[in-house]
Amino acid sequence: MAKARIGLIGLGVMGANLTLNIAEKGFVVAVHNRTTARIGEFIGAAGDLADRLVAAETPAALAAALTPPRAIIIMVQAGAAVDATIAGLTPHLHPGDILIDAGNADFNDTRRREAALREQGLRFIGMGVSGGEEGARHGPSIMVGGTAEAYAEISDIVQAIAARYQGAPCAAHLGSDGAGHFVKTVHNGIEYADMQMIAEIYGLLRDGEGRTPVDIAALFGGWNHGPLKSYLVEITAKVLAATDPGTGAAMVDVIIDRAGQKGTGRWTVIEALKLGQSASSIEAAVGARSWSAAKDLREIGAQRLQGRAEIEMGPTLLDVDLEKALLAARIIAYAQGFSLLAAASDEFGWALDLARTAEIWRAGCIIRSALLDDIATAFRADLPGSSLILAPYFSRLLADNIAPLRRVVARAAMGGYAVPAMAAALAYFDTMRQARGTAALIQAQRDFFGAHGFERVDIDGTDHHGPWGS
Amino acid sequence: MAKARIGLIGLGVMGANLTLNIAEKGFVVAVHNRTTARIGEFIGAAGDLADRLVAAETPAALAAALTPPRAIIIMVQAGAAVDATIAGLTPHLHPGDILIDAGNADFNDTRRREAALREQGLRFIGMGVSGGEEGARHGPSIMVGGTAEAYAEISDIVQAIAARYQGAPCAAHLGSDGAGHFVKTVHNGIEYADMQMIAEIYGLLRDGEGRTPVDIAALFGGWNHGPLKSYLVEITAKVLAATDPGTGAAMVDVIIDRAGQKGTGRWTVIEALKLGQSASSIEAAVGARSWSAAKDLREIGAQRLQGRAEIEMGPTLLDVDLEKALLAARIIAYAQGFSLLAAASDEFGWALDLARTAEIWRAGCIIRSALLDDIATAFRADLPGSSLILAPYFSRLLADNIAPLRRVVARAAMGGYAVPAMAAALAYFDTMRQARGTAALIQAQRDFFGAHGFERVDIDGTDHHGPWGS
Repeated sequence: MAKARIGLIGLGVMGANLTLNIAEKGFVVAVHNRTTARIGEFIGAAGDLADRLVAAETPAALAAALTPPRAIIIMVQAGAAVDATIAGLTPHLHPGDILIDAGNADFNDTRRREAALREQGLRFIGMGVSGGEEGARHGPSIMVGGTAEAYAEISDIVQAIAARYQGAPCAAHLGSDGAGHFVKTVHNGIEYADMQMIAEIYGLLRDGEGRTPVDIAALFGGWNHGPLKSYLVEITAKVLAATDPGTGAAMVDVIIDRAGQKGTGRWTVIEALKLGQSASSIEAAVGARSWSAAKDLREIGAQRLQGRAEIEMGPTLLDVDLEKALLAARIIAYAQGFSLLAAASDEFGWALDLARTAEIWRAGCIIRSALLDDIATAFRADLPGSSLILAPYFSRLLADNIAPLRRVVARAAMGGYAVPAMAAALAYFDTMRQARGTAALIQAQRDFFGAHGFERVDIDGTDHHGPWGS
Repeated sequence: MAKARIGLIGLGVMGANLTLNIAEKGFVVAVHNRTTARIGEFIGAAGDLADRLVAAETPAALAAALTPPRAIIIMVQAGAAVDATIAGLTPHLHPGDILIDAGNADFNDTRRREAALREQGLRFIGMGVSGGEEGARHGPSIMVGGTAEAYAEISDIVQAIAARYQGAPCAAHLGSDGAGHFVKTVHNGIEYADMQMIAEIYGLLRDGEGRTPVDIAALFGGWNHGPLKSYLVEITAKVLAATDPGTGAAMVDVIIDRAGQKGTGRWTVIEALKLGQSASSIEAAVGARSWSAAKDLREIGAQRLQGRAEIEMGPTLLDVDLEKALLAARIIAYAQGFSLLAAASDEFGWALDLARTAEIWRAGCIIRSALLDDIATAFRADLPGSSLILAPYFSRLLADNIAPLRRVVARAAMGGYAVPAMAAALAYFDTMRQARGTAALIQAQRDFFGAHGFERVDIDGTDHHGPWGS
C-alpha cells in the first residue's frame, strides 16, 4: 500500500471526524488508537473514504506508514494522555518529524512539550480546533502554534479541512509554541462568557417576565437576524424550542441546572490574572458554572435568602433592551478576550495578529458571529492598547447599546435576578471610561498600613508617602 | 554569651519589627541579614532591647547561636529568595531543627518546601503574619501551618508576640504544611475586596454626589461606630481627612489612581478557580487594580466612551443606603473567602477550623472588624456547605441590608459608576438564592454542539441527550 500523507492517533469523536474530514479532502491518513479494536471498526464504518485510511496497529506501524518528515496528529484527552502518547511515539520518529497536538491542551504544557521535543530534533505543533463534532467533520476553525517551517509541511491539509468564510479558510499559523492553544483557550473563554450572558437574558425573561421557552426561543430566533447573528444565538433558539419526546415538556425544563466545565474557561481567567489582566466577564461565567453545581446549597438559599421585597423594581425592560444589552455585553466580553491575547502575545513573543485571529473565528467555531468581521476590521487599524472598545466603530456601537445594558443590570439588581457576567461587563466599561478612578484611595490605604508608597499627580517618583500620623 | 532562643533572617521592615516584638517579650533572638552591615545598624538602634539580640554574621554563626532544636524565622522576599535562604541554612542544621517562613509565600511553595525539608529530617512551618509594620512590632495576627509538634516548639513565642482580642492571642496552628500561608493568602484576598468596595462607595460619593474628601471622611468616621466598625473603615476616614502639607490639597487628591499589588489577591482567585470555586468579589478587586494601571487607556476611554446620557438615573441614594450596602457586600466577600478556605481544607486535608480562623482575625490583622466575632459564632454552629450567608444570623443581617446593596448597584449601573466588586457580591447572593438557576440552558447548548450530555430532573443518569436534530 502507498504511504499515508499524515497520521492520526486517537479515534474518539473528534479524532474520528477530523480523520474523515482529511480523507475526504483527498489525503491518505494512517490511523492508530490505543484500543486497537476501534481502528478496524472505524475504518469499516468509513464507507468510500476507507480507501484513504491505513490501519496502524502500533505506534511503530504508524511511523512506518508515513514518509519523512512524518506528521502525526494526536487527538487524545488533554493532559497525561498526551505525554504518554508522545512518549510512545518518539522512539519511532526521526529528526524533523512533526507531532501535532489537536486537543484542548493547556498552552503551558504545549510550550513545555515543544521545548522538550525540539531538544530531540522533533517538531511540535499545538493546534487549537474549534467547532465541536460537526466542525471537525465538515470544517473547524483551526488555530496553529509552532514554527512557520513546521506549519508549512502541513498547511495544505490544514487549509483544506478548515471551515470557509466567503471562500477563505478559517485556519492560520498564529505564532510559535503555545500560541495556537492559547488562542483556542481564550476562544473558549469568550464562549463561556457569551453562553452565560445568553443564560442571564433567558433568566430575566423566564423569571422576571414569566415568558415560556417557546416564547423566548422566538425572541432569540428573531435576534439571530440582527446584529446578534451568531451560532450561539441560533442554537439557543433551537434548544429552547425543542420538546422532550418523552414528557412533551420543553426540553430545557427537564434538564438539571448544573453545568459542567472542562477547564479552558478557568484557564483563561487564570492566565489573565497571571498576566496582570482581568477577564472579569469570563470569570463570572466560570463562577456561574461552579455555583450551578452547588444546587443543594442554592435550595437552602432559596429558603433563607429571600431578603426584603422590593417596592421599586428598577426600570421596565422592553425586548429590544435585552437584545441591545446582550450585544453590548458581548462586545465587552470579546474586548476582554482580545486584550488578554495582546498581553500574552507581548509576554511570550508571539506577535499575534489579532485581526487574523478574528478572521479565522468567522466560521467553523462555536463563537462565530456577525461581529467578528467588524472586529477584524477594527484590529486592522491602529488601536490603543489593543482595546476593542476604543475602536471608533465599537465605541459608537457601544454608545448605542450601553444604556440598555445599564437598564438590564439595574433591573436585575433591583429584582433579584443574577446577571454576573453582564454586570462584570458593564463595570469594565465604566472603569475604562474613568480617566480618574478611585485607586488613589486604595494607594492611600496601602501606604497607611504598609508604607507601600504611591505616585503623585504633581511630583515625579514612585515612593511618596502620606502624612498619616496615627 | 548565652544561646538565643530563636533566630531570624531578613532585617527588612517586617523582620526588624518582628524581632523587636519577640525581644520585648523576653526572648533572646539571634539575627542575620544578607547585607551584614544592616545587622549592627539594627542592633545599634534597638535601645534596651539590644541586650536580647545576638548578631550572627553568617548562616553558620546563626545556627551556632541556637540550641537544638533550632528555630529560625525567615523573613525575606517571597519566592526565590526564600529557597536561596533555605539552601544557605540547611548545611548548618541538624535533624529536628525548624525553619519558619513568615513571609507572604505562595502556599504551593510552602507545601513543596515542607515536603523537601521533611525528606532531610528538618521541620518547616509556613507562618502567615498580618498587620503590616505596626502589627509586626506590637502584635500581628498569626496563621500557622506545619506539624503540631513543630508548632509546639515555638508556640510560646508565637502566642506572646501575637495581637490580643479580649486577652486571647490572635495566633493559631491551623493545619499542616501550607495551611497557614493559604489562610493568609485568603485573608489578603478578602482585604482586596473590602478595600475595593470601600473605594467604590468613595467613588459614588465623589463622582455621583460631588462630596469632598473631608465630607466622605466624616461619613466613614461615623460608620466606624456602627456595624461597619473595622480597621479599614477607620483608616479610610483618616486618609480621606489628611491634607497634603506641600499643597494644602486633600492628600487623596494628589495621589495617582494607579494601584499596586503584590500577588496574594490574584493567588486567592487562581486557587479558587483551581478548586472549582469562584471568589468573584475578590476577582473584581484584583481586576480593578489591574485596570487602574491602564491609566493611559482610561484617559482615551473617557473621551470615546461617553455613551448616551441617561434620563433615568436609577434610585436615589441616602448615606444610610451606602453604609448598609457596604455591610452587605462585605459579608458576601467574607462568605466567598470562607467558602474557599473550606474547599481548600477538603482538598489538602487540613481540617481547618473556620471559627478559629475568624477568631484570630479579630485583632492585629488588616481585615479586623466587628463582624469577625459573629462570623466565628456562625462557624461554631452547623453551617451547610460552610456557606456563611446561610447562617441564620447572617441571612437575617443580609435581609436587612441587601435592598440598599440593590439600590447602590442599580444606581451605579444607571449613572455610569463602576462598582465591580459590589455588583459581583450581589450577583453571588442572587445566584445562591436561586433553587432553579439558568444553567439548564448552558447544558442544552453544550449538548447541542458538543454532545456533552446532561442530567434530567426526572430520570437518573448523567449522560442524557436532547432531540436537537439540526
